Amino acid sequence: MSKNRPLILVTNDDGITAPGIRTLIQAMLPLGEVVVVAPDAPQSGMGHAITVNDTLYCDPIKVDESLDIKEFSCSGTPADCVKIAVNEVLHRKPDLVVSGINHGSNASINVIYSGTMSAAVEAGTMGIPAIGFSLLDFSYNADFSHTVSPIQHLTRQCLTHGMPQGVVLNVNFPKIDQGPFKGIKVCRQANAQWVEQFDKRKSPWGRTYYWLSGEFVNLDQGQDTDQWALDNGYISVVPVQYDLTAHYAMPLINQWNLNS
Amino acid sequence: MSKNRPLILVTNDDGITAPGIRTLIQAMLPLGEVVVVAPDAPQSGMGHAITVNDTLYCDPIKVDESLDIKEFSCSGTPADCVKIAVNEVLHRKPDLVVSGINHGSNASINVIYSGTMSAAVEAGTMGIPAIGFSLLDFSYNADFSHTVSPIQHLTRQCLTHGMPQGVVLNVNFPKIDQGPFKGIKVCRQANAQWVEQFDKRKSPWGRTYYWLSGEFVNLDQGQDTDQWALDNGYISVVPVQYDLTAHYAMPLINQWNLNS
Repeated sequence: MSKNRPLILVTNDDGITAPGIRTLIQAMLPLGEVVVVAPDAPQSGMGHAITVNDTLYCDPIKVDESLDIKEFSCSGTPADCVKIAVNEVLHRKPDLVVSGINHGSNASINVIYSGTMSAAVEAGTMGIPAIGFSLLDFSYNADFSHTVSPIQHLTRQCLTHGMPQGVVLNVNFPKIDQGPFKGIKVCRQANAQWVEQFDKRKSPWGRTYYWLSGEFVNLDQGQDTDQWALDNGYISVVPVQYDLTAHYAMPLINQWNLNS
Repeated sequence: MSKNRPLILVTNDDGITAPGIRTLIQAMLPLGEVVVVAPDAPQSGMGHAITVNDTLYCDPIKVDESLDIKEFSCSGTPADCVKIAVNEVLHRKPDLVVSGINHGSNASINVIYSGTMSAAVEAGTMGIPAIGFSLLDFSYNADFSHTVSPIQHLTRQCLTHGMPQGVVLNVNFPKIDQGPFKGIKVCRQANAQWVEQFDKRKSPWGRTYYWLSGEFVNLDQGQDTDQWALDNGYISVVPVQYDLTAHYAMPLINQWNLNS
């Protein structure tokens, strides 16, 4: 391959065989040299977990015989995949890390639970431009085909312009059976929350256990949010930072009696 | 107990028997009605993981016979503990969630990997004031005694003043063998990163595996950061937000050719 082709690392949190990542790999092939390092099993809801007290495997795998690319299946989390890819597989920083396409939304508050986005954030902390892609359709056999062209367009724009310092992109697609995308909107993260319900059950041995379930509640009326964009047929793009400092709150905390 | 006593939920990521949480429970006893819901095993590095595809246990446990408080051991992550505590154990919002005391630093970039802080952030998303406490000492038998008085002071300030909207606190203590704390500093998160190294080994069956290790590298020369405060003997307090939007980057991304 030409040395001038960008080196693109592809990962996800649904596992290396998920239809979402297979679509993302196909989308990246015309844009650069593609290497895949992705979890060997689904990792949804893993947040920014890393494996510190256990071993990691990272083995070559051939998922699709028709593809002339290197793929590796890793026993760790999405963030682990990025770390081990950069340090042990690629032996140099890739030009771009793309993660996804996630089966389900990572918009709004979902971003903090997202393994897909943790891979992008991990790359960001290493100074690598990174984008996480998600489709608002949980089904395994979701139709990802309509996302390919906008994914390629956004990726080309990222490779052309570079990424602002300290930022990665959280890109979400509305369910495509709602019709063609109306366009791409740069948004802020909607102020929403999950209102949990736990389903309380008994095991066959009589022990109480719980299943987490819940309802997504959007508390935000703004029309500049990712949730609004998605609800109205747009692709949402939120620049996400990993400096979590709430600068606006610093003077408020300084008004406390801190050093009595 | 008086209805006017604040209801304080205590959790952590090192597990319910870890010395850090036992110290934090003792520190909270004079301040309110204490309920403990914490992981049944260590969860370090779990980030904001939640358990969506598996069952959860949450059972009453008596860790310390001398304490007249309710404690529950949960099979989930720190974020799971907060969710299940609020929904199934307490049946009402607590007035405060405290998490820790973590055995090891959650300052700077460590915050994004932190199970301790994920519990605090989870509470924050529910509108509950929350503080995560960490001591820069990884050892199991670290001396936490010097942290009790400042933890009580900060907690009282939080209960008095309330927490700014959308914010939780990330409090880190320097190792106390460095001498008495010089004071409390409200800080921004230092721009630092982990430079990973993977230790590559062979299993007894000849399969290659890896251990993650790495070196913490502070890239930030500022004297207003948590890392500077800790290096200079201060307790660091960083207000942490879970709206991850990089507002400053939105106009930069809007300069891309998004809708061609």
